[in-house]
Amino acid sequence: MLGLMQDQGLLISSLIEFADRNHGDAPIVSRRVEGDIHRYTYRDAAGRARRVANALDADAIEQGERVATLAWNGYRHFELYFGVSGSGRVLHTLNPRLAPDQVVWIANHAEDRVLCFDMSFLPLVKAVWQRCTTVRKWVALCEADALPADSGIDGLVSYEAWIGAASDRYTWPALDERTAASLCYTSGTTGNPKGALYSHRSTVLHAFAAALPDAMSLSARDSVLPVVPMFHVNAWGTPYAAAMTGAKLVFPGGALDGKSVYELIESEGVTLAAGVPTVWLGLLNHMAQAGARFSTLQRTVIGGSACPPAMIHTFKEQYGVAVLHAWGMTEMSPLGTVCNLKGKQLALPPDEQMKTLVKQGRAIYGVDMKIVDPEGRELPWDGQASGDLLVKGPWIISSYFKGEGGDPLRDGWFPTGDVATIDADGFLQITDRSKDVIKSGGEWISSIDIENIAMAHPAVAMAACIAVPHPKWDERPLLVVMPKPGTHPDRADILRFYEGRVAKWQVPDDVVFVDAIPLGATGKMQKMKLREQFRDHVLPAAG
Amino acid sequence: MLGLMQDQGLLISSLIEFADRNHGDAPIVSRRVEGDIHRYTYRDAAGRARRVANALDADAIEQGERVATLAWNGYRHFELYFGVSGSGRVLHTLNPRLAPDQVVWIANHAEDRVLCFDMSFLPLVKAVWQRCTTVRKWVALCEADALPADSGIDGLVSYEAWIGAASDRYTWPALDERTAASLCYTSGTTGNPKGALYSHRSTVLHAFAAALPDAMSLSARDSVLPVVPMFHVNAWGTPYAAAMTGAKLVFPGGALDGKSVYELIESEGVTLAAGVPTVWLGLLNHMAQAGARFSTLQRTVIGGSACPPAMIHTFKEQYGVAVLHAWGMTEMSPLGTVCNLKGKQLALPPDEQMKTLVKQGRAIYGVDMKIVDPEGRELPWDGQASGDLLVKGPWIISSYFKGEGGDPLRDGWFPTGDVATIDADGFLQITDRSKDVIKSGGEWISSIDIENIAMAHPAVAMAACIAVPHPKWDERPLLVVMPKPGTHPDRADILRFYEGRVAKWQVPDDVVFVDAIPLGATGKMQKMKLREQFRDHVLPAAG
Repeated sequence: MLGLMQDQGLLISSLIEFADRNHGDAPIVSRRVEGDIHRYTYRDAAGRARRVANALDADAIEQGERVATLAWNGYRHFELYFGVSGSGRVLHTLNPRLAPDQVVWIANHAEDRVLCFDMSFLPLVKAVWQRCTTVRKWVALCEADALPADSGIDGLVSYEAWIGAASDRYTWPALDERTAASLCYTSGTTGNPKGALYSHRSTVLHAFAAALPDAMSLSARDSVLPVVPMFHVNAWGTPYAAAMTGAKLVFPGGALDGKSVYELIESEGVTLAAGVPTVWLGLLNHMAQAGARFSTLQRTVIGGSACPPAMIHTFKEQYGVAVLHAWGMTEMSPLGTVCNLKGKQLALPPDEQMKTLVKQGRAIYGVDMKIVDPEGRELPWDGQASGDLLVKGPWIISSYFKGEGGDPLRDGWFPTGDVATIDADGFLQITDRSKDVIKSGGEWISSIDIENIAMAHPAVAMAACIAVPHPKWDERPLLVVMPKPGTHPDRADILRFYEGRVAKWQVPDDVVFVDAIPLGATGKMQKMKLREQFRDHVLPAAG
Repeated sequence: MLGLMQDQGLLISSLIEFADRNHGDAPIVSRRVEGDIHRYTYRDAAGRARRVANALDADAIEQGERVATLAWNGYRHFELYFGVSGSGRVLHTLNPRLAPDQVVWIANHAEDRVLCFDMSFLPLVKAVWQRCTTVRKWVALCEADALPADSGIDGLVSYEAWIGAASDRYTWPALDERTAASLCYTSGTTGNPKGALYSHRSTVLHAFAAALPDAMSLSARDSVLPVVPMFHVNAWGTPYAAAMTGAKLVFPGGALDGKSVYELIESEGVTLAAGVPTVWLGLLNHMAQAGARFSTLQRTVIGGSACPPAMIHTFKEQYGVAVLHAWGMTEMSPLGTVCNLKGKQLALPPDEQMKTLVKQGRAIYGVDMKIVDPEGRELPWDGQASGDLLVKGPWIISSYFKGEGGDPLRDGWFPTGDVATIDADGFLQITDRSKDVIKSGGEWISSIDIENIAMAHPAVAMAACIAVPHPKWDERPLLVVMPKPGTHPDRADILRFYEGRVAKWQVPDDVVFVDAIPLGATGKMQKMKLREQFRDHVLPAAG
């Protein structure tokens, strides 16, 4: 027997219509690639999203066809989020930090029909457009008069001319909620990138979970700054969750340096900011140099890579800002866990609380997780046992776009590729990526643990710990350090720092100093590149 | 094209499993009808819910069959919520405040197969059991040794014996999420009661929305006291939302007097309490008499009837507790709106904020609402235009159980029977039930407005404003007043109180004093009874 409730699908269009109707005058503020600040409201955005839908109709873009973006976080990108998906097309957010060949490969694999790009990416588009064989229409996210006369791109139109010709009245289709809504490719450190194809249902459910008090806690009293790019797993769903709750949105455009981010936080009364550790490193450096304080910022969501404990300390102790350590994946829309204390932990002394706050957090409802040993047997939640992390839930992929890579699931569970512990309270701690673990004489050494210690050293700006081959122990840890500007730490100095902090056999065998650690297109350290670079490094003990 | 996300239904079983796994040791505290305090955890509750499922299997209760309860808020009732619905049966929460004949009518209409009752309702059950012709099994919610030897009820078993014989291991069925999960009858002031049949999907979506920061804002740091009964629209969904978030649950049993509620709030560190205005009236009276203060309570959700502004004031000014004024209906699972300020209102002076806080609040995402004139034309959201309120959304009924009353929808919208304004910020204000509006000479007088003013008078404990026939004006308002103990207000005294507070023509024509105002089974004033009682009342002006 079925219940007798209204049959209303969970559709992305309903998010923007809700914001229009109930939060029509709530502001959306964008730093444009042009450099100036643009302001308008959810009501304006909803009207322009409807124009996008009509423009796609006029161009005969079919249901399910992909409309790609190469764009920073901004209001036009936001309109495309709703206009494209809401009307039944699939929004494909391309990562402009990828190399041109990669952009071409992904755009062709996705069979993008329309590609909308920020003018700052015109050089990239010029380099790729002739090889993107499925794209029929190129749209520059600018005013008509900002369009260069000689772009060299056939039929290039400006976004404003394109949607300006369309009506702002539109009836959103009553789609099946399982309809594909957006597409995001994994960074693909090994093999070809693979696409995660989100549905309307998964997106709306994820927005509900992301807005909960124990996740990002979004309300109509918040001013939200997604520093995490909208081309990186839909800015962790913040555009959808903000529309669901009527939160003020602040988009940083391409200016992600510490000073620009700080100024935007202050001028727009930002209460919640979300981004990867490397961005916060820049922000904290700026704060320290400028002697600046936050006047409205309450909390930062930090994910994408493990957040060094030192950073959590600094935000909390020096600036009174709570860090919400989070964990997720492109394949998970992306949120899996967020670190918020439980009621029983509130009375603990700060040091004890910090032991929990450095973990990646608890599962949000909808996400189920388990850790297993190499034979697939479930391991206990005791904070000690470490194993492969598997997840399932309604916003986690069942397969990749076009079936690439076959069936990724194991008995219905998605293997994350992370190695983790889970404690008795359900707090997850990622100990490593399974491919980054250092396997030394049958024991595992967590590269993240070793890096976190190095990051607490006053002269270390960034540190990566990688495995190098060892004749006796199979692998041993090598620490790659990028010193802070003006400091000159030496090997012995760094190694001494490990005394008493880890077991002797976990201390790196050697330390090398570099000017820069390579970062991938999503801001993560590219340890694979470091492993290649130092493949032949001779460790002192084995020399 | 469909998205490629995991196909995982929104099931009630997943809520309790989530709580078991992630909040296993979070407490559930119950004041039992036996009088003592019972404590256990979500993990215990989950195990016992699985026992319930196995016990129903053993009794061959079919999928979709109704399992009824006549019970206060407590841990056994909580177990039934999950064990019954999670295993595919329908939980039917009977209202024990109804008259025996009504209980019989509803139980037979619902075709209940099993009926579980608190021992405090044994007299009621004895009076009805032989006429409840579909019930095959009677279960007393007590220990085996508390069962009376001569209950007179054939085959009566104790709950503890019943589930004690069953295993606590059970695999919840992967139901279609639209499967019926629970059934609640409207109080039915006119005609027969009608059943709202909720689904798993509607229940889980409602829990998401109810837990959002702009609704009840539930987290694992909260201690939640649902004073609103679990037989009244599932205690507004708090049991589900608490399981979703790992909040501590505190159940008051049948002790809803001010002193008992206050003591539980203090002893269990309650941060959020939810109930109807009449309960809070009792609590506030106790607080005033005892000179008591709250040490942990942060907010109260008040719904079921309009909350008098004076109560909002008292909670806020005297006790520092925020009142979340809310509005909903049995047909809406029940939440429609909750009153939380928007960011732009935070800087307003308290008096200005109060003008918004006395309204019923903004729609939560998922609920769409509109007001229409008698011809069905949509009215503006200007805070002035008042019209019939219609709603739609995935946790609002499409029809009543067994199709009673035909198709209740108008073009897909459910007519609430309320008359309301909506302001430009989306804040709803119920001006009246359409049947309670006083139609005086072509103008409408809101009975609620008139009552709220009376309630602010220091000598008025409760007040009801009803229409009485009038030869010239069709109808005129009569105020029925229940004075506070020890006070003796007179007619002129009360009427003087309206001077300057409403237009002259809205002032009641007369005031009558009563010892008690009749309350319905859900704590609402029964104005229909008052209208009958005072049908022949002669108004002075018309005398």
